[in-house]
Amino acid sequence: MRRVDPREPQLAVTDWGATRGDGIFESVSVIDGRMPPLDARFDRLEASARALDLPLIDRALWTEALLRSIDAHDPVERLAVTLALTRGVEGGDGTPTAWLLARPARDFTDIRRTGVSAVTLDRGYASDAAEGAPWLLLGAKHLSYATNSAALREASRRGADDVIFTSTDGLALEGPTSSLLVRRGDIVESPSADSGILAGTTQSTAFGFFESRGFTARFAPIRADDLADADAVWLVSSVRQAVAVHTLDGRPLPVDGELTAALNDWLANAARSE
Amino acid sequence: MRRVDPREPQLAVTDWGATRGDGIFESVSVIDGRMPPLDARFDRLEASARALDLPLIDRALWTEALLRSIDAHDPVERLAVTLALTRGVEGGDGTPTAWLLARPARDFTDIRRTGVSAVTLDRGYASDAAEGAPWLLLGAKHLSYATNSAALREASRRGADDVIFTSTDGLALEGPTSSLLVRRGDIVESPSADSGILAGTTQSTAFGFFESRGFTARFAPIRADDLADADAVWLVSSVRQAVAVHTLDGRPLPVDGELTAALNDWLANAARSE
Repeated sequence: MRRVDPREPQLAVTDWGATRGDGIFESVSVIDGRMPPLDARFDRLEASARALDLPLIDRALWTEALLRSIDAHDPVERLAVTLALTRGVEGGDGTPTAWLLARPARDFTDIRRTGVSAVTLDRGYASDAAEGAPWLLLGAKHLSYATNSAALREASRRGADDVIFTSTDGLALEGPTSSLLVRRGDIVESPSADSGILAGTTQSTAFGFFESRGFTARFAPIRADDLADADAVWLVSSVRQAVAVHTLDGRPLPVDGELTAALNDWLANAARSE
Repeated sequence: MRRVDPREPQLAVTDWGATRGDGIFESVSVIDGRMPPLDARFDRLEASARALDLPLIDRALWTEALLRSIDAHDPVERLAVTLALTRGVEGGDGTPTAWLLARPARDFTDIRRTGVSAVTLDRGYASDAAEGAPWLLLGAKHLSYATNSAALREASRRGADDVIFTSTDGLALEGPTSSLLVRRGDIVESPSADSGILAGTTQSTAFGFFESRGFTARFAPIRADDLADADAVWLVSSVRQAVAVHTLDGRPLPVDGELTAALNDWLANAARSE
């Protein structure tokens, strides 16, 4: 483990991460300098490693690196920490490249309050595409995110802030960097991971919030066409937390500001809980 | 333009190329130190740039960089040169990162003679998925190639050397790093680029070879099921050139060693033609 100058280059252009997006990552939110719970995140990092045939994670080493980065950083309210692991360097000895980068998180305070507009975009896969085709890496959090970035640019061209991907068979899936939650009455649903999406760690914490409020929280197939008359739609992720979708494909959706604020308090508290 | 030490890191871990595979590339084969024709390659690089909303290519600058890299390198029979362009650094001023890397090409002499075994793997998309969904970046040569690498590992697990991707509607498409050519009698076909595959620059040169030999060379949908009784199947790419597929999904395919050798001579001559 080595601390490097963030202003100097750190990676070789022959790193498989740079030449083929052949690696995995996680984003961790560190609030008030407190070590966040890491088990679910390490579980997902390990699932991603398995999907890409990368070596399993040395949790103690990553935890130590995270602690050191928190210590070394100026105290800020919120740090966004990226953990990345690539297949190493072309022609190298197979040693993976790993880095951890801690930076002050963007301030999402306003967007957590106001919400975002989103568009639905076809992700091109059927919801059962992952079955029997592990090489599609659906459900792995890998570095090959060019299509996610392209989808966000398409949203921007359409005057929207974010994207909800849909499957070719009409299911709503997830955002490019977030999980989807949909409320209808006292039921909150999220698409299950077997539809080829990322297992959401923040989504899982959010389920705890809704259960504590008496909602039924569960995984279920969500038809994209049914989003239009949902009682609330959120996109949740570790650093931005929960944002309500106030407009979908140009049509307004109901927003419950109080419930969203309480959900965000819950998520922030969960991140501080260790 | 700056020449850098290949043993030192060149890229920031905050480069969008490294964190999101958000960039494009081309591979160029330089034979006997002779500048190869670049128009078709620059055309494709530019098409990729447009697909990813990256700035258009300064052809004179890239050509100059390529010339300098050839001059600077020890004289070798074959150089494999990578040109890459990323969206630049997160939080930067939007200036893209560009690099050119010249290395001795792997020696593919034997494999050009013996051919490869391949397996067909579902790419998860229908052949018309690209229509109306430009954010899927089908047909762009971008850095988000993790699924291509995963497919090659899957092939290896099945005891094969390479992959022919298929669409969900049963068409044969391309290899992870190559175009597909199929001969049946005096007709040689390649899947057309509107099926969501890369426009092959080597495939285009290969068409010239087959036409010079009296074959009809054309684009056409190729059913994956029809590969089994083709008269020849090749995977073609700029550095490895043409390799015959001698075994597909465990079943033997006919190989014409003489025709393959002549095709490879033609491709090598075309690369030296300027």
